[in-house]
Amino acid sequence: MFWRDALGLELKEVEVVEDQGVRVAMLPIGESRIELLEATSAETPVGKFLAKRGPGIHHLCVEVNDINAKLSELRACGVRLIDEQPRVGAGGALVAFVHPSSTGGVLIELTQKGSGSH
Amino acid sequence: MFWRDALGLELKEVEVVEDQGVRVAMLPIGESRIELLEATSAETPVGKFLAKRGPGIHHLCVEVNDINAKLSELRACGVRLIDEQPRVGAGGALVAFVHPSSTGGVLIELTQKGSGSH
Repeated sequence: MFWRDALGLELKEVEVVEDQGVRVAMLPIGESRIELLEATSAETPVGKFLAKRGPGIHHLCVEVNDINAKLSELRACGVRLIDEQPRVGAGGALVAFVHPSSTGGVLIELTQKGSGSH
Repeated sequence: MFWRDALGLELKEVEVVEDQGVRVAMLPIGESRIELLEATSAETPVGKFLAKRGPGIHHLCVEVNDINAKLSELRACGVRLIDEQPRVGAGGALVAFVHPSSTGGVLIELTQKGSGSH
């Protein structure tokens, strides 16, 4: 596996997030981490992404202090949101996705700092 | 502009990297940074990427301590490299790209820590 065996990152844990239909392998790198996503079925968002585009970069996640405040700010700027309200993601963190049509084609996940176990 | 005006990141600087045919806007975020890339012409790698796939995530960059040593390790693992030798990227840093066919479809740039001005 490239990320662990060739690049030398540590595989810290693997978690299934049923709500999002993914199995996630987490490899910390500095303050950030690489998350490798595997779809739990073809009908999940990640399963559909893989069927349509093949493997590649799915999204970027940005940590924010207050996810509800940030969603309000984005809404006030006319940014299109996928999640109008935060939901629970990997590690129990509060997360919300921003629509790529507002970001130059980049799917962005916001996560609230300190809201999960990772 | 989403990254600065909606998300609230600081636009630190804009630089043209002639060798790669890109104008780069740099927005620090924690230890990392978002780099927004604009092609200087349609015939550049980023120009061709945009024509083929539209705007989106182009690559991830990972900082390493010794880029020549890391390229040797990757080669020893059978990883396909785009750049067999480091070249000079934004800010004068030593950089080398890894081929997406070895990484699960992710274009990865390695950059040597401390080798550039950023």
